[in-house]
Amino acid sequence: MKVIETAAGMKRARRQESGSVGLVPTMGYLHKGHLSLVSRARQENDRVVVSVFVNPTQFGPSEDFVRYPRDTERDLAMLAREEVDVVFMPPVEEVYPNGFNTSVEVGEVTERLEGACRPGHFRGVATVVNKLFNIVQPNRAYFGQKDAQQAIVIKRMVTDLDMNVEVVVMPTMREEDGLAMSSRNVYLNGEERHAALVLSRSLQQASDLHKRGERSAEGVRRAMTALIEAEKLAEIDYVSVADASTLAELDTIAGPALVSIAVRIGKTRLIDNTILGTD
Amino acid sequence: MKVIETAAGMKRARRQESGSVGLVPTMGYLHKGHLSLVSRARQENDRVVVSVFVNPTQFGPSEDFVRYPRDTERDLAMLAREEVDVVFMPPVEEVYPNGFNTSVEVGEVTERLEGACRPGHFRGVATVVNKLFNIVQPNRAYFGQKDAQQAIVIKRMVTDLDMNVEVVVMPTMREEDGLAMSSRNVYLNGEERHAALVLSRSLQQASDLHKRGERSAEGVRRAMTALIEAEKLAEIDYVSVADASTLAELDTIAGPALVSIAVRIGKTRLIDNTILGTD
Repeated sequence: MKVIETAAGMKRARRQESGSVGLVPTMGYLHKGHLSLVSRARQENDRVVVSVFVNPTQFGPSEDFVRYPRDTERDLAMLAREEVDVVFMPPVEEVYPNGFNTSVEVGEVTERLEGACRPGHFRGVATVVNKLFNIVQPNRAYFGQKDAQQAIVIKRMVTDLDMNVEVVVMPTMREEDGLAMSSRNVYLNGEERHAALVLSRSLQQASDLHKRGERSAEGVRRAMTALIEAEKLAEIDYVSVADASTLAELDTIAGPALVSIAVRIGKTRLIDNTILGTD
Repeated sequence: MKVIETAAGMKRARRQESGSVGLVPTMGYLHKGHLSLVSRARQENDRVVVSVFVNPTQFGPSEDFVRYPRDTERDLAMLAREEVDVVFMPPVEEVYPNGFNTSVEVGEVTERLEGACRPGHFRGVATVVNKLFNIVQPNRAYFGQKDAQQAIVIKRMVTDLDMNVEVVVMPTMREEDGLAMSSRNVYLNGEERHAALVLSRSLQQASDLHKRGERSAEGVRRAMTALIEAEKLAEIDYVSVADASTLAELDTIAGPALVSIAVRIGKTRLIDNTILGTD
């Protein structure tokens, strides 16, 4: 497994490969969710590249960039076991050298949900992913459904800019009790870890209501909100039932709907989602 | 010579080529300036692609998008004579289909000169060139020094987004009397055509002053302004003496300086430029 820290080095390594390349972009502190992406990339491509880069431009000034969990040694050991070919792990100044001054902006779908709560977040995401695609030139790139809006934004960018990569979105991986896997779960203390179950439980409730015939989006939002508010440690950022492609909030659930939530458990902000109406 | 109208068709044609590809992006209504780019591309690459696309997003609402000169038959005949391999000529709805919602924005260097006079112009340019680069995947792309700021913006974008293309900038081609070649010259009537010489004359004056030892940027601007204002049909948009890489206006001409002007001759807005201090 090669570890490469420069864009030029990564491009050089890429030019030496003639087969297909799968890229898994990550911010490190890997968990089974990431590994499921790696495993799929392994199945579908001749070579697998995993990028590990905590991207400062997608964090707001009051967010957790500095304390975001990092453990390079552990990440590299996990990726070596998965038979990853290349880990691209650039320092910040390699990605954003002096004079850097370009951004990629996706409109509309970025204005809602995470985009509304975290101004500039998706500009940071789109720009860094655009760069990673140009540096690694993958045939396929793998993202988790856990960051549902991110996947939509990246697909929009790839379509709109005619980028030569197929975006593959893989299901959210969960702990046995339902908590969506996230590098940020490490922030939770014991009590908060328990309280955090309210996220997946509220999504389960949405699915149950939908199965029982509930088609009022507001009905679903209200039930979920009540359930989450009953948890004292939880504070809601948003509870959304939206069109799964435009992310516009729905009145009536007719086609596929993305139910997504952002909830603070203590100081830790967690997100989760599920899709209704595809079964 | 193949003429291709879809992005998918262009990508397919590109995949069939293993040699190097040179791209000359144009808005059509070709002149010798464009042909000098094609000729250089011909020398340096196995295959030459010329795109012909009048990009609506780089025109302001009160600008000349609708009346911008077009002559596809003549363009194709000229390109066939130059032994161009592929002409990529997409309709507007192929480049910007329903739902299109992504833009590429270069900061700072776009805020001055043309960017200040034409808000959104360089966002349109950067976005469409980004798309063309992804569709054609050229090894090299050719632009004219006539649009000096555009060349700087595109180089910045390519560097910042790690795009895999070399940007080649070729000297401005001029009519025998000095007028910089431009598709927009066709707008000029006889009297205006004569008045338009004030642009190249003012740049010549700047070069002469610099050769004689003038190092005050304001001295150069004043002399040029006086010369242009003496022409009754001319109305100045800007006269700039700026750092050739940052485009910041200079006090003293020490390193390479870009002297650039935008002048309206009647209803026609013309630009031209020269570089001082590289000889």
